[in-house]
Amino acid sequence: MATTGSSLFAPRESIEQVEEGDELAPKFDANGLLPVVTTDATSGEVLMHGYMNAEALEKTIQTGEAHYWSRSRQALWHKGATSGLIQKIVEIRIDDDQDAVWLRADVQGGASCHVGYRSCFFRSVPIGDGGGGEAAGAPTKLNFEETEKVFDPVEVYGDAPNPTKL
Amino acid sequence: MATTGSSLFAPRESIEQVEEGDELAPKFDANGLLPVVTTDATSGEVLMHGYMNAEALEKTIQTGEAHYWSRSRQALWHKGATSGLIQKIVEIRIDDDQDAVWLRADVQGGASCHVGYRSCFFRSVPIGDGGGGEAAGAPTKLNFEETEKVFDPVEVYGDAPNPTKL
Repeated sequence: MATTGSSLFAPRESIEQVEEGDELAPKFDANGLLPVVTTDATSGEVLMHGYMNAEALEKTIQTGEAHYWSRSRQALWHKGATSGLIQKIVEIRIDDDQDAVWLRADVQGGASCHVGYRSCFFRSVPIGDGGGGEAAGAPTKLNFEETEKVFDPVEVYGDAPNPTKL
Repeated sequence: MATTGSSLFAPRESIEQVEEGDELAPKFDANGLLPVVTTDATSGEVLMHGYMNAEALEKTIQTGEAHYWSRSRQALWHKGATSGLIQKIVEIRIDDDQDAVWLRADVQGGASCHVGYRSCFFRSVPIGDGGGGEAAGAPTKLNFEETEKVFDPVEVYGDAPNPTKL
């Protein structure tokens, strides 16, 4: 498992250094990962939520293209290597305690979701007690905020295993 | 630990149901949590990255105010209960495999970061091989994208323990 031994990363020495300093000192969790939010650099839309290990963060910084750790495949994942939907990074941000990353990206092909939509977050959850369920006790009904897929996942991914797990 | 036994949530029965259906069937991890990205509903800026357990997701849906699970305090966390910086939810989105949530929020007081900044992601990481380090092998230097704090954390939180962990 990748650790934080990269020369790009400073050791975490104090709360003040991590929160208020100017050294990149990321914190990876027990599995060697930190969460990543990727937004469209132009629209601000959240495209996907993923994870990086130290190598993925290094490669993203060095190449300016988004790299993640695929938990389903347990492998470094250069986003777009299969689909062509490369994410060109406009800006990388890190949060106060340096255990989460925000990528602002331009997406070649205009889609980031393996189901075929622009954003992985293509459905909304109604707010309020009714929760959208028809009857009391019925599960909340989601609304589709994108109605058309940008690409056909079968054409793009063929018979590659679906990463979604029940 | 909260489970997915909520009446708002459907059981996860198939990949198609989860990815392409209209039932809310969230997946919580081994710790009973799912990650949450919160953006400013107007600017699109990513404000914070947090976690929800089933109860936090239920309360967010029912009240329209962001609730999280605080991993540092191991408690349900109604954001703003201490600081007054309540997050009023404009929209809740869920991702393709329903294991991550995106909240679009209006933030009372205009700040979401316990350090005092508008966004927790107030620093950027330079892209490229140089990585901003002065010398080869030096840690990457962060740039401050927000230069002034919105509030004084000592005034707002007093001597409450800092949630950041090394």
